[in-house]
Amino acid sequence: MAKRNAFYAQSGGVTAVINASACGVIETARQHKQTIGKVYAGRNGIIGALREELIDTSKESAKTIAALRYTPAGAFGSCRYKLKSIEANRAEYERLLEVFKAHDIGYFFYNGGGDSQDTAHKVSQLSEKMAYPLTCIGIPKTVDNDLPLTDNCPGFGSVAKYVAVSTREAGLDVASMCESSTKVFILEVMGRHAGWIAAAAGLAQEEQGDPPHVIIFPEIAFDQKKFLAKVKRSVSDNGYCVVVVSEGAHYADGRFLSESGGKDAFGHAQLGGVAPAIATMVKESLGYKYHWAVADYLQRAARHIASATDVEQAYAMGQAAVEFALAGKNAVMPIIVRKAGKTYRWEVGQANLADVANVERKMPRNYISADGFGITDACRDYLQPLIQGEDYPPYKNGLPQIARLKKVMVAKKLKPFVV
Amino acid sequence: MAKRNAFYAQSGGVTAVINASACGVIETARQHKQTIGKVYAGRNGIIGALREELIDTSKESAKTIAALRYTPAGAFGSCRYKLKSIEANRAEYERLLEVFKAHDIGYFFYNGGGDSQDTAHKVSQLSEKMAYPLTCIGIPKTVDNDLPLTDNCPGFGSVAKYVAVSTREAGLDVASMCESSTKVFILEVMGRHAGWIAAAAGLAQEEQGDPPHVIIFPEIAFDQKKFLAKVKRSVSDNGYCVVVVSEGAHYADGRFLSESGGKDAFGHAQLGGVAPAIATMVKESLGYKYHWAVADYLQRAARHIASATDVEQAYAMGQAAVEFALAGKNAVMPIIVRKAGKTYRWEVGQANLADVANVERKMPRNYISADGFGITDACRDYLQPLIQGEDYPPYKNGLPQIARLKKVMVAKKLKPFVV
Repeated sequence: MAKRNAFYAQSGGVTAVINASACGVIETARQHKQTIGKVYAGRNGIIGALREELIDTSKESAKTIAALRYTPAGAFGSCRYKLKSIEANRAEYERLLEVFKAHDIGYFFYNGGGDSQDTAHKVSQLSEKMAYPLTCIGIPKTVDNDLPLTDNCPGFGSVAKYVAVSTREAGLDVASMCESSTKVFILEVMGRHAGWIAAAAGLAQEEQGDPPHVIIFPEIAFDQKKFLAKVKRSVSDNGYCVVVVSEGAHYADGRFLSESGGKDAFGHAQLGGVAPAIATMVKESLGYKYHWAVADYLQRAARHIASATDVEQAYAMGQAAVEFALAGKNAVMPIIVRKAGKTYRWEVGQANLADVANVERKMPRNYISADGFGITDACRDYLQPLIQGEDYPPYKNGLPQIARLKKVMVAKKLKPFVV
Repeated sequence: MAKRNAFYAQSGGVTAVINASACGVIETARQHKQTIGKVYAGRNGIIGALREELIDTSKESAKTIAALRYTPAGAFGSCRYKLKSIEANRAEYERLLEVFKAHDIGYFFYNGGGDSQDTAHKVSQLSEKMAYPLTCIGIPKTVDNDLPLTDNCPGFGSVAKYVAVSTREAGLDVASMCESSTKVFILEVMGRHAGWIAAAAGLAQEEQGDPPHVIIFPEIAFDQKKFLAKVKRSVSDNGYCVVVVSEGAHYADGRFLSESGGKDAFGHAQLGGVAPAIATMVKESLGYKYHWAVADYLQRAARHIASATDVEQAYAMGQAAVEFALAGKNAVMPIIVRKAGKTYRWEVGQANLADVANVERKMPRNYISADGFGITDACRDYLQPLIQGEDYPPYKNGLPQIARLKKVMVAKKLKPFVV
């Protein structure tokens, strides 16, 4: 194979371990310099390719690249930018290929969720149609854990661990205070369509009566009456109640719980989360003293408590993507395959981008308890290995250290393109 | 000295390391069995003494007691219960002494903040007046870091570390996304009267332009115009803006920012936090896409990312309390004394309960930058050593392990007393 350059981009919401995938890509590519020239990273994801803003990762030291493994978020910048269909905006796809051509890019590694794999697939199709030789490999990433075919998604294990650990810790806090103070604690977690993250909180429960006592999934229509009865019973049985709720929790008619109908001082709809909405509900109906937390970005950026399994898998996906490319594969994505047996073991598999694109995997009903407010043993068996192991970053002055990239930009060769 | 029993209670909001103080008390007392008989812990704090609900810690194994060192929150239960003045409710104080007498309690260790030290002081005065021999020793604890005389308060260093780490991590997330998505991120932290916790976020800033870009302290009246200008400048300079705000942030007229004036669907005042209030403000005035998080109990329960310095000091305070008692001291509290010199070193000192009670230490003005939105080098020098070092708990199945106490109750000898 003639030596050609590679383009790598991060896409969509970032995670605690997406840079571990970047590390896997770059370190593996560096071992094959006879085939892969330079790895260029898109500044702010695919936008960087469209704007011809390419970061030359060859200017970064081996030490800096290694540090990506323990640096959360998207070190090269990510974006929320979905390419339209080829029919709707062919100019964008053609620009992509024009940039790739100008910089002799023969490998396209796209690190993202369902939408991004769809884009990678389209780019692959178009490059074939236009007879531009391009190897397109997807790299899975999403805290939502909603990609199909792969057993789980890099990024999820770490947010799952964060949520399980936080639920255990905050649960102990509430248990300490409930006799004379807070009786209900509500933690809002991510997951607009799928309840995987909320489900992970269930791992905190080791013994009967341990928190969380109620989990609210987007897969189950919210029934206020049943919910309040469950909270009341938990306070009566345990003295307190810990509720973990998905941001995507909604009523049977599809209305999100976070659309509380409140207005702010300006008369605009309240920009609240679901946790305060639930807190209001509990206070109004049951009168309990409450506290609530919204983890938001803290959960998906929490590299300090990343799952070692997740870090390893994220790195392996990046590495496998390059190995697939070197093996001549195209329009595929490495996936995580769980091996049969009681002990958790996994291996790298592969999926066609065509089969991954735009399919959303929700929690199966048998992972949610009969009453809709907890997880089953089947769910626990699935989730447990994903939070296994700690992988602490190095610390200096009491703080986790991060990769500080030079981000040397590749000289532009083309006219500007407005994104 | 004749051998007598000890009573230990946890009071007020719990912390990631208050159990490390309990561990220090119990392990040290166990080394002096000729003087201190059993250590009884109040179930739910001082309420446990009033109700004669005493947990016999001698029934717990050495291993379980050692595990307290890495177990967050109040293992014996805490309470928000402030004893009134002796004049207003003498019956409660007499009941306390009655329970102490019934169980031959000669040592009273009270682990809490300013209010609790006031109570310990009053109990000490009354026992003297009633000629009941009782050694009263306070043990400092508060995430708010607002006790006087001591250099810092056990519990604060760990929440400070959590906030600094979270700010760094979430800041990287926002930086990744800001080109096409979130531009402003707001993290709400604890601190109703003092801004120490918010200040700790400032430690995340290592290089110029690093987050946080704006800190809002309760010590500085909130000026919306200046704040919005600062946010706008940060977005213009850095591409994004990370704001850390104390729950106690307020306007010049004393109105809290969290009192946004909003109403929920029922027409009741909005029970929102300050983070969503600030987010609304930013959106309305500047139009930036935002995200916000409220750490709430997660921050003070976060034993998984505790400061090793804090854990060590919390243990040392418990140990010193017992040593003080054995040395015949009374109505005092061990404190942390920072030694002079460039390298951080500290030693145990002592303060009179009379001087500690009901004094609140706020951030000195010279710890806050001239514009009121950041910390100074003096503040950094003060805070830095307090988050130093990691002290990871042991993990099993991917989760931090905790002390599981048997909580054997001491047989009651008295008539019930309604609290």
